[in-house]
Amino acid sequence: MQIYLDNAATTKMSKTAIEAMLPYMDGIYANPSSLHLLGQQANEALFHAREKIAGLLGCDAGEITFTSGGSEADNQAIVSAARIGEKQNKKHIISTAFEHHAVLHTLERLEREGFEVTLLDVNENGVIHPRQVAEAIRPDTCLVTVMYANNEIGTVEPIAEIGQICREKGVLFHTDAVQAAGHLKIDVKEQNIDMLSLSAHKFHGPKGVGALYARKGIRLTSLMEGGAQERGKRAGTENIPGIIGLAAAFEEACENIDRNAEKTTYLRDMLIAGISEIPHSILNGDAKKRLPGNVNFCFEGIEGESLLLCLSDKGVYGSSGSACTSGSLDPSHVLLAIGRTHDIAHGSLRLTLSEENTEEEIKYTIAAVKEIVAYLRGFSPVWRDCVSGKKDFIIK
Amino acid sequence: MQIYLDNAATTKMSKTAIEAMLPYMDGIYANPSSLHLLGQQANEALFHAREKIAGLLGCDAGEITFTSGGSEADNQAIVSAARIGEKQNKKHIISTAFEHHAVLHTLERLEREGFEVTLLDVNENGVIHPRQVAEAIRPDTCLVTVMYANNEIGTVEPIAEIGQICREKGVLFHTDAVQAAGHLKIDVKEQNIDMLSLSAHKFHGPKGVGALYARKGIRLTSLMEGGAQERGKRAGTENIPGIIGLAAAFEEACENIDRNAEKTTYLRDMLIAGISEIPHSILNGDAKKRLPGNVNFCFEGIEGESLLLCLSDKGVYGSSGSACTSGSLDPSHVLLAIGRTHDIAHGSLRLTLSEENTEEEIKYTIAAVKEIVAYLRGFSPVWRDCVSGKKDFIIK
Repeated sequence: MQIYLDNAATTKMSKTAIEAMLPYMDGIYANPSSLHLLGQQANEALFHAREKIAGLLGCDAGEITFTSGGSEADNQAIVSAARIGEKQNKKHIISTAFEHHAVLHTLERLEREGFEVTLLDVNENGVIHPRQVAEAIRPDTCLVTVMYANNEIGTVEPIAEIGQICREKGVLFHTDAVQAAGHLKIDVKEQNIDMLSLSAHKFHGPKGVGALYARKGIRLTSLMEGGAQERGKRAGTENIPGIIGLAAAFEEACENIDRNAEKTTYLRDMLIAGISEIPHSILNGDAKKRLPGNVNFCFEGIEGESLLLCLSDKGVYGSSGSACTSGSLDPSHVLLAIGRTHDIAHGSLRLTLSEENTEEEIKYTIAAVKEIVAYLRGFSPVWRDCVSGKKDFIIK
Repeated sequence: MQIYLDNAATTKMSKTAIEAMLPYMDGIYANPSSLHLLGQQANEALFHAREKIAGLLGCDAGEITFTSGGSEADNQAIVSAARIGEKQNKKHIISTAFEHHAVLHTLERLEREGFEVTLLDVNENGVIHPRQVAEAIRPDTCLVTVMYANNEIGTVEPIAEIGQICREKGVLFHTDAVQAAGHLKIDVKEQNIDMLSLSAHKFHGPKGVGALYARKGIRLTSLMEGGAQERGKRAGTENIPGIIGLAAAFEEACENIDRNAEKTTYLRDMLIAGISEIPHSILNGDAKKRLPGNVNFCFEGIEGESLLLCLSDKGVYGSSGSACTSGSLDPSHVLLAIGRTHDIAHGSLRLTLSEENTEEEIKYTIAAVKEIVAYLRGFSPVWRDCVSGKKDFIIK
C-alpha cells in the first residue's frame, strides 16, 4: 500500500502532461528564437501555450511570463512592484504573517534595502479580513501581496475583495496562487488581481516551470540578465517542453476543476471527521474556507517528525508542513501565526489529497493515524503529565 | 530532407536522457525535501545526480548547485563574485568583448552599481592571450570571467592558462562553459577553474536546467529568495526530472566525448572546406582552436536572414549567430569584436553540428549554401557594385 497525501509539496505528473511534453523533447526540439522552420514550430507551440494559459486565467497572452517556478514568479512580482514603487517614492509593502518564504524572504531582502513591510495578522482560522488591508494601506504603499491559499493549512483568502480595495486605492495587488491554481477557479480580471504566481508541479504538471501573470502596463524587472527571451522579461532559452506541460496540465486541471474539487472535498471531510475523533487533536485552518485537498491537524503530546516516519512505514506519505522548510527545526511560522504554541506546532500533520485518492485509502489513513498517535503518546512524557493531571491539556 | 545544424542554439534530447527522466515524472515524483519514503527516494536520486556531475567535472558534489539553466548560472556566479569582492573593496572585473549576453548584461548591471569592468579585446581569430589577463589584473580585481568556447564562432579559449594566472594572483575565475560542457574535456581542478556554468540542453539534455560549479569556500549569493533548497543557494522545489536528465545526458556526452569530437570535427572540416570554395567568403574564428561542431562564415553581398530562410526552405536549419539575439537587428557583437565590418557581419551563417549528422547531410548542405549564395548575390546591389569594380570587395 502506497498512499500519497503530500500533494501540496508536489504532485504526480498526469499522463496528459507527459504526453504533451514528449514531442518537444526529440521532435520539435528547436530553440523558439531560431528563424528556421523547426524553430518557428517551437515558437508557435510557445505562442499557443501562452494563449491557453491566458485564456484559463482570463487575461491576455502578453500578460503571461514563463519562469522556472513559483518561487521565481513570487520574487519577480514583488521585486518588480518594489522597483515601480521606489520611482514614485513609495516604499511600503503590505503582506501577511503566514505567506510562503518565497514572499516573506523577498520582503526581508527589500526591508534591508530600506522598504517598510507591514505583515497583517491572520485570525485563529488563518483568514485575513479585507478591512485589515484597507486599514493598512498608506499613501506610500506600493504593493499588497496576499497568498490565494495557504500552503500549510489550506485557508483560502478573500482575494477578489482585497483586489477591489487595492484597485480603489491605486495600489498594486499580487497573489501567490501556487497552491490555488488548478484547484480553485481564478479569473484575474474579475478578481482585480494585478499579478499572480503559479507553479506547474502543484497541479500535475512538470517541475521547474511556472508562470507570472502581470497586468498590461506593469513593468517587470528581470531577475536575470541575458538574452531577450520573454520580451526581455526573463533571460534564458525557453523551457518549451516544460511550458507545454504546464499548459496541458493547467488545461486538464481547469476543465475538471468542479469534479475534482467535489471529490477531494468529500475525501477531505471524511479524513477530517475521522482524525477529529482522536482526543486532544485540533484542525488547523478554517473548516470551510480551505482548499479542497488540505487537511492539517495538531495533536497534543506528539512530535510531528515521528508521526510522519511511522506513517511512511505504513505507506502513508504526508508532511508536517511546508516541504520547503522540512530541514528546519523551527516550528511552522504559519501555525504560530494562527496562535498555536511552539509545543503544539511541533506536533502537526499535513495530509494533502488529490482527485486520485480513494475512500479506501482515506479509511486506511484514518486508522493508521489513530493507531500511531496512540502508540506515540505511550512514550510521551507530556502526554502522561496531561493524563495524570500534572499539566493542563493545551488542546481541549 | 531535414538537416539540423543549429546545435549551438539547442540540441535534440537523447533517448538516454528522456528515458532517465520519465520514472521521475510519475513514479518517484515526490518533493526531495519530504521526509517520507518517496521523498527520500527523490532525494537519493538528487544526491546521485549531483555526485555523477561532480565526478565528470572533477569536483566534489557539494560544489555543484543546480539552476534553471546557463543564464541563471552565469548571473549567479558573477553576482556572487561581485558581492564577495565588494566586501573587500574590490570592484573591478575583467571579461572579454565577445561573451554571451548573460555575462555582458550582468556586468552592465554591476557597472550601474559602481563596478568597473575591463573587456579584453579578442584577436582576429577570436582568441584571448593569457598575457592579456595577467596585464589587466589590478589589486582591486575581484573576478575574471572568460567563456570556455564562444557560442557564435566556436573559438576555444586557453582556460587552464588563464585559470593559473588568476590562481597565482588570488583572483576568482569563472568560465561560461555552456558551449563547451559535454563537447570538450573539462577538469575544473586541473584547469584552475573557480566557477563554471553549464546548461543541459546544449548536450542533448533537457531545457530549463543547468548547473553552477563553485569551488568550496566561495559563498554563492542566491538570486531568488524562498525555501532552503540547494543548501540555501537556490530557492524553489528542485526540478528532479530535469536534474536527472542533465546528469544522464552529461554522462553520455562525456563517455563518448572523443568519438563524438572526432566525428563532428571530420564533418566540420568537410563543411568548412566546401563552403570555403565560395568566392568572397571567410571563416569566422580560429580554424583549429574551435569547437568540434562549429562552422561560421561571412559572405560578401549577402543578407544573413535571407540566406537562413532559403536554407530552411531546403530543409537545412542553421542560424546567423546566437539564437538569444535573433530578434535584434544589430549585427553580432562577436563578429564586430573579431573585426568584421557592420555590412559583412550582417551576412553571417552559423552551422553547428552534432555527432548525429551524416556525410550525406554535409554534402547536401554545401551544395545548398553554394546555390543560395549565388542566387541571392544575383539580387544584391552591393555584389553587383563589387563585381563591376565600382566598389572594392571587403572579403578578398
